[in-house]
Amino acid sequence: MKDQALHMTMLYDFYGDLLTERQREFYDLYHNEDLSLAEIAENYGITRQGVRDVIIRAEAILNDFEEKTGIVARFLKVRTTLEEVQSLVEAAEERNMSRSRDSRLTEIHSEITSLLAGLED
Amino acid sequence: MKDQALHMTMLYDFYGDLLTERQREFYDLYHNEDLSLAEIAENYGITRQGVRDVIIRAEAILNDFEEKTGIVARFLKVRTTLEEVQSLVEAAEERNMSRSRDSRLTEIHSEITSLLAGLED
Repeated sequence: MKDQALHMTMLYDFYGDLLTERQREFYDLYHNEDLSLAEIAENYGITRQGVRDVIIRAEAILNDFEEKTGIVARFLKVRTTLEEVQSLVEAAEERNMSRSRDSRLTEIHSEITSLLAGLED
Repeated sequence: MKDQALHMTMLYDFYGDLLTERQREFYDLYHNEDLSLAEIAENYGITRQGVRDVIIRAEAILNDFEEKTGIVARFLKVRTTLEEVQSLVEAAEERNMSRSRDSRLTEIHSEITSLLAGLED
């Protein structure tokens, strides 16, 4: 269940609000807060198997949404391309610095930085 | 039902695969192919009210996903910022043209154009 931690965190970020409150809680404690099944079970006074069932169901729901919509994959692609663009902007800025400055490059750089930060939210 | 045509098309684009086949068909014919309720009803041999119920249900599902996840709003924000960045790149390119060229700007321009095209898919 805990493979692909980053992937599971992104699915939760995008689709988490589609889960029930309990699914969200257990999923978050397990995948994002790194509690064990036994620890969650103890905190909530239910069996380890009960916790496991809820998390597996939540994972199945999130994976199903992604399989059908491909939205997280789409976002990752946008992010990768933006990172490439940002490298190009940085290189263009460096060259620009040694000549008369075009302040638009700085602005482009900062807009893309904000965009990338927004994608991390 | 037919207000906000663009918004409804985007919701369909993102979440359409979460609908049942019939919901998808009717929604698509009505919102994207611009058929009337009566036309769809005639083609499928059911009542106009029956078609209407399916479409209203489909709209509710799509709106509910968006309300919970905010994914389309997020994408629209990315697109708007990218369009602003693209204008800045174009201005920087024009200035760049009159001097010795930095080919990175052309590359940045074309990467952002692809990104924007990808967001339209």
